[in-house]
Amino acid sequence: MSDPHPFDTATLLEPLGDGRFRGETSDAYRNLAGPFGGITAALLMKAALDDERRRGDPVSFTVNFCKGIADGPFEVATRLERGGKYVQHWSLRLTQGDEVCTTATLIFGMRNDTLSHQEARMPRAAAPEDCAELETSALMNWVQRYRFRFSEGAPAFSDAPWEELGDSRSVVWVDDRQGRPLDYPGLAAFSDSFFLRLVHMRGALSPMGTVSLTTQFHAPHDEVAAQGAAPLLGVAWTSRVHAHFHDQQMQLWGGDGRLLATGTQIVWFRE
Amino acid sequence: MSDPHPFDTATLLEPLGDGRFRGETSDAYRNLAGPFGGITAALLMKAALDDERRRGDPVSFTVNFCKGIADGPFEVATRLERGGKYVQHWSLRLTQGDEVCTTATLIFGMRNDTLSHQEARMPRAAAPEDCAELETSALMNWVQRYRFRFSEGAPAFSDAPWEELGDSRSVVWVDDRQGRPLDYPGLAAFSDSFFLRLVHMRGALSPMGTVSLTTQFHAPHDEVAAQGAAPLLGVAWTSRVHAHFHDQQMQLWGGDGRLLATGTQIVWFRE
Repeated sequence: MSDPHPFDTATLLEPLGDGRFRGETSDAYRNLAGPFGGITAALLMKAALDDERRRGDPVSFTVNFCKGIADGPFEVATRLERGGKYVQHWSLRLTQGDEVCTTATLIFGMRNDTLSHQEARMPRAAAPEDCAELETSALMNWVQRYRFRFSEGAPAFSDAPWEELGDSRSVVWVDDRQGRPLDYPGLAAFSDSFFLRLVHMRGALSPMGTVSLTTQFHAPHDEVAAQGAAPLLGVAWTSRVHAHFHDQQMQLWGGDGRLLATGTQIVWFRE
Repeated sequence: MSDPHPFDTATLLEPLGDGRFRGETSDAYRNLAGPFGGITAALLMKAALDDERRRGDPVSFTVNFCKGIADGPFEVATRLERGGKYVQHWSLRLTQGDEVCTTATLIFGMRNDTLSHQEARMPRAAAPEDCAELETSALMNWVQRYRFRFSEGAPAFSDAPWEELGDSRSVVWVDDRQGRPLDYPGLAAFSDSFFLRLVHMRGALSPMGTVSLTTQFHAPHDEVAAQGAAPLLGVAWTSRVHAHFHDQQMQLWGGDGRLLATGTQIVWFRE
């Protein structure tokens, strides 16, 4: 038997009953301080996804990062707020002792055939094998779990003080370095796998962090499964950077040109 | 003394202590079934905004519409999840009896001068006075509280069955018909004032509704106040319509070309 993928270890939850679970932070997905937001999103989603009352596929997911998670154990609490015929609403909460670290709301929808229309257009991008791979070995642990091949807007890190902000847009092929097949928790983590736009725009890591992350899942479960471990094409940009906050918009495209997810996050930064 | 604006009547909350409030639905903002989502968003925001513990300006707001609100009284509960130096996290909940109708998470941020950069560009639009005003008298009550002047993508309602989906994009000047000066609850309501994209694309009202609405506020409070009652320029579009759900992306621009808010919602529809 092969070892479990670090993603599955990091999102492992031990049921404590009454919709409560115990988990533990994982070195493999460590960020600068605390865990990668995408792995926190993934494990919160998993708590609801694995509940026997859950019906349908995730369609919208908002994760609020209230407080950094300290290394060690944490608890997750789930609550089915409302279960209708077409839509289910869940609330989720990650705590350490008396402290709330993360809150989230997650919506599942029953997805059947209807009219279908994709208005967004997949950006032109060089083939993944023609894009240089980002060197990640000196970066945070979570970054090393993925492979980033930029077709456009690769980060150019520099110690020189920035003089003018660069363009925020990136087009990047991203996949799991160990080839983990896509599922919804995996897609939730990919939705937070873009470097924060100011890192690209200033060419430097400086104090900043995601405050809230909203992801919309357009792909029903069969589309997610069909993606397998093939690279996703990610697009990210910002609309406005102002007074300590900026938005970060994103799209995640399947290799076959279907738009799997869209999303937005609000980022706090220090000048 | 003049009568209060119907917006202020509809968002009036009577404090019950311990972060609980009592409100009542308002005919002036009635939608097809239950109240306009924007007025529900506005009153939830107001409950936190008026709390003496609140610090900073709203920066991100997610409202989940779990169940239609019946005509009559309701209760709002607020909870300060985490108050940090730079960011505050609140959870909000609207109930009728034992039923949860709406959940929300709202983030406030302390906003001071930093680098500032607006990458999004305001779309070209005809001047408000050169755009035809949408005839609203036959439509839902809430629509009549506003004035919609489309520069692009006005809805063309038709009883004929639709054959091909139209383009989803609209560019519209929107203002309060009675000239209410802009504040954050007003801006939260404007963020839900776009007709659902499928209404534009099919030219017909059919069963559909917003499931979850996320708005990001880029404008600090002085920018919001400076807008006064002048029309905002709204832009809305969808990325993908598929299997009972579609996203709806939006921007709200001040008359001076500043991007006041961006947002996204997920919409359920029946074929």
